Amino acid sequence: MAKQEDVFKKVISHAKEYGFIFPSSEIYDGLSAVYDYGQNGAELKNNIKQYWWKAMVQLNENIVGIDSAILMHPTTWKASGHVDAFNDPLIDNKDSKKRFRADVLVEDYCAKIEDKENKEIEKAAKRFGDAFDKDQFVATNPKVLEYRARREAILSRLAKSLENEDLADVKALIEELEIADPDTGSKNWTDVRQFNLMFGTKLGASADSAMDLYLRPETAQGIFVNFLNVQKTSRHKLPFGIAQIGKAFRNEIVARQFIFRMREFEQMEMQFFVAPGTELEFYEKWKQTRLKWHLALGLGDENYRFHDHEKLAHYANAAADIEFNFPFGFKELEGIHSRTDFDLKAHEKYSGRKLQYFDPERNENYVPYVVETSVGLDRLFLALFSHCLRDEVLEDGSERTVLSLPPALAPVKAAILPLMKKDGLAEYAEKIFNDLKYDFNLFYEEKDAIGKRYRRQDAIGTPYCITIDHDSLIDHTVTIRDRDTMQQERVPVSELRRIIDEKTNFRNILSKI
Amino acid sequence: MAKQEDVFKKVISHAKEYGFIFPSSEIYDGLSAVYDYGQNGAELKNNIKQYWWKAMVQLNENIVGIDSAILMHPTTWKASGHVDAFNDPLIDNKDSKKRFRADVLVEDYCAKIEDKENKEIEKAAKRFGDAFDKDQFVATNPKVLEYRARREAILSRLAKSLENEDLADVKALIEELEIADPDTGSKNWTDVRQFNLMFGTKLGASADSAMDLYLRPETAQGIFVNFLNVQKTSRHKLPFGIAQIGKAFRNEIVARQFIFRMREFEQMEMQFFVAPGTELEFYEKWKQTRLKWHLALGLGDENYRFHDHEKLAHYANAAADIEFNFPFGFKELEGIHSRTDFDLKAHEKYSGRKLQYFDPERNENYVPYVVETSVGLDRLFLALFSHCLRDEVLEDGSERTVLSLPPALAPVKAAILPLMKKDGLAEYAEKIFNDLKYDFNLFYEEKDAIGKRYRRQDAIGTPYCITIDHDSLIDHTVTIRDRDTMQQERVPVSELRRIIDEKTNFRNILSKI
Repeated sequence: MAKQEDVFKKVISHAKEYGFIFPSSEIYDGLSAVYDYGQNGAELKNNIKQYWWKAMVQLNENIVGIDSAILMHPTTWKASGHVDAFNDPLIDNKDSKKRFRADVLVEDYCAKIEDKENKEIEKAAKRFGDAFDKDQFVATNPKVLEYRARREAILSRLAKSLENEDLADVKALIEELEIADPDTGSKNWTDVRQFNLMFGTKLGASADSAMDLYLRPETAQGIFVNFLNVQKTSRHKLPFGIAQIGKAFRNEIVARQFIFRMREFEQMEMQFFVAPGTELEFYEKWKQTRLKWHLALGLGDENYRFHDHEKLAHYANAAADIEFNFPFGFKELEGIHSRTDFDLKAHEKYSGRKLQYFDPERNENYVPYVVETSVGLDRLFLALFSHCLRDEVLEDGSERTVLSLPPALAPVKAAILPLMKKDGLAEYAEKIFNDLKYDFNLFYEEKDAIGKRYRRQDAIGTPYCITIDHDSLIDHTVTIRDRDTMQQERVPVSELRRIIDEKTNFRNILSKI
Repeated sequence: MAKQEDVFKKVISHAKEYGFIFPSSEIYDGLSAVYDYGQNGAELKNNIKQYWWKAMVQLNENIVGIDSAILMHPTTWKASGHVDAFNDPLIDNKDSKKRFRADVLVEDYCAKIEDKENKEIEKAAKRFGDAFDKDQFVATNPKVLEYRARREAILSRLAKSLENEDLADVKALIEELEIADPDTGSKNWTDVRQFNLMFGTKLGASADSAMDLYLRPETAQGIFVNFLNVQKTSRHKLPFGIAQIGKAFRNEIVARQFIFRMREFEQMEMQFFVAPGTELEFYEKWKQTRLKWHLALGLGDENYRFHDHEKLAHYANAAADIEFNFPFGFKELEGIHSRTDFDLKAHEKYSGRKLQYFDPERNENYVPYVVETSVGLDRLFLALFSHCLRDEVLEDGSERTVLSLPPALAPVKAAILPLMKKDGLAEYAEKIFNDLKYDFNLFYEEKDAIGKRYRRQDAIGTPYCITIDHDSLIDHTVTIRDRDTMQQERVPVSELRRIIDEKTNFRNILSKI
């Protein structure tokens, strides 16, 4: 556990030091749970977007992409259920005036019980050494069993109270457990209330006519309200899909884990519209297709798993997450939901407009069913970044930090490095830069020892370093160094475009899906 | 004028009918001055972004791109001046309860005088026929001279009152001119007040600790607050630039002209950091470079002009617009501003942090000066779309509507059209689709007469239509039809990738800059 925390700290500091992610408005001490993408982060993020967009829109002749606005008519969020039900249960401490998520207070309490449990296990592991059978110990040790039973009882009561919206019982639970404000120790709590997670704003200037708006908490509704516009103008028959990449906003009370849970974040969502009764077949298909899309990145099949939802949201008849092995454990990376006709029907009801499709094969009108795939773009960024970042000890005993990103996603495809500035090497390097710049994002650097420059490119994940030396001027060859193997090869300048393209083209990963 | 209005109407209806732009939340009767980009609009918009990003970031080794958040620490907007000075002067009609921009009421009044002026000129032009000397007439006709003098006097008083923040005089002017609510005729006005154009929202749930935030009204400040983070982690020396594409929000009271002035819009901004004293030289350079970037799109050099600002904003020591000939006349498309050290100095003051650069050549620390280039992405979209849309009468007397977009920006690069579905033509077409889909965004359609399908591709700007017929199965050739010339050529299937790439690659326009 300690090691995982160290890994995560290293991820955060490397992200800042190498221009991937900065805290937002850092000169003003930051804005909690909001981050900016720096010069390398912006490129990596753009490349992830491209990988998704190409896989969704370009490779599928029956999927199109749109770009709907963040601001939508407020009735949208009545229809979707967000105005009434997109809440967190909050509680205030009367003494400290601090506000907490009531469910998180209880969960944190249970996490402490779990810590005790783990300590018991660790103690026993030390005592028994190699002979220790963890499963056996956990299943029989009275202390561990008691801790576990206690935890489970609390969490199950919490879940039930939240499900029944019995907020009085959530408060009673907090009081029975004698949970205190973690900072001040005070147990003087208010009642638990629901707090809506949408950011509100006002459109228009007149006090009379100002309209209460929300920043969208998900991009999906922008697809639903445009369903008929897109279907009619694209002339697509069912099944077909609409894809979208865009910002969404949630006023999270407890936002943590770096860019894993942010108040401003980006989603890549695709809604696939199908005939009623066929949705579970497409749900299964999309589960597999989406997993293959992730696996094609090459981060290791063992780092992904499905988590099928047992308890379904009110709009779904099947749902699963694709979880990734983050530095803090397996967590949701993408959700695949069979959303039924819930959203389109709700919009029909609230707008008074028909949102139906005439099916020429069935010869009938119906409201389509929807299968949704929804990736957190920032989470995928974090998955890639944290997985690909590693320290290596080299043969000569020296160390390097390398970010072994899939070459198609790397911010910089090749660094152009004249061995020195003088003797015409810089001019020759510039010629190469100017020749290749139309096709690839390049980096140019002429200062510092070449080894230092290689290390810096390793740290931002550049697949190739191209070094121009005195021989280059004579025979028009350069050395090209591979990030992962660190092998250098001498190649003709005329071959560079082909070599770089071969390794960094999106085709390499797209063809694996 | 009537004709220009017709053109603009056609632009708006074509944009909707062919999946480029839909009114936002249309099923809820829309959200004023907010629009969604449909399946073809999203592609065109993405391609414009790519053209800008490649030209800025990829082609210039001393410019990097970032992606900062929409939500920023609120002190950012104190420092930038937006909290205090980003206002419109508003006036309410007490009877109709409607709110108006006071300056726009006066400007509309003057526009009516100008209409009268133009009518005098038209009358005279008719009377004198070919012999009419407009300049001479305008310079000497007493009526025209009177109208003109009246207009100029009113506008100059308005400008002076606004500059002095003398809002009482703006109201006096409205009353003296007897301006009425255009809908109801009422002249019963409130005082004129300043209204801030930023959308506000609140971060956090606690009533005590909630923080008043704004949706950013410009992307530039996200670059300024990150200046040192980017400079230090990228190790760039001055001069160097930071580029960004992103959403911005302005609570416009009078938002009109389709996507020209929206409440939610997108900017492509680049801030170029330079040594004090060198800013005007870079300002001139960027003016020319940016104009070349626009001209490379091939919409006609005569449709662009510079408009140098005589009155400068408080932060600028030189400023110009690149104006484009929109359907409603020449209007701002891009701004190039020499912003001095105003923003960085203001952030130094409000944050208490140094935002300086150590110049190794001058051997001194200083706050850099900034030259900004700022394009309205949606405006550029409108410029392209409205300019490239035209009706043509063909040789045989039939008509077609064609959207002659620069091929690199076209939403679809090629349509794959089997002449008919049967006889294995669809299967062969699909093989071609699958072979080319990794490299290009394609469209596949197998229904309807081929002529109809060509027309639909013309209308969305697809450079190439590829038709598969019975001969294709035998000799592996297809016909490829050029959107602009409508010429068809028979070519080997194996040549398709090269042909499409040659015409649609970004290199074609990038190399003209």
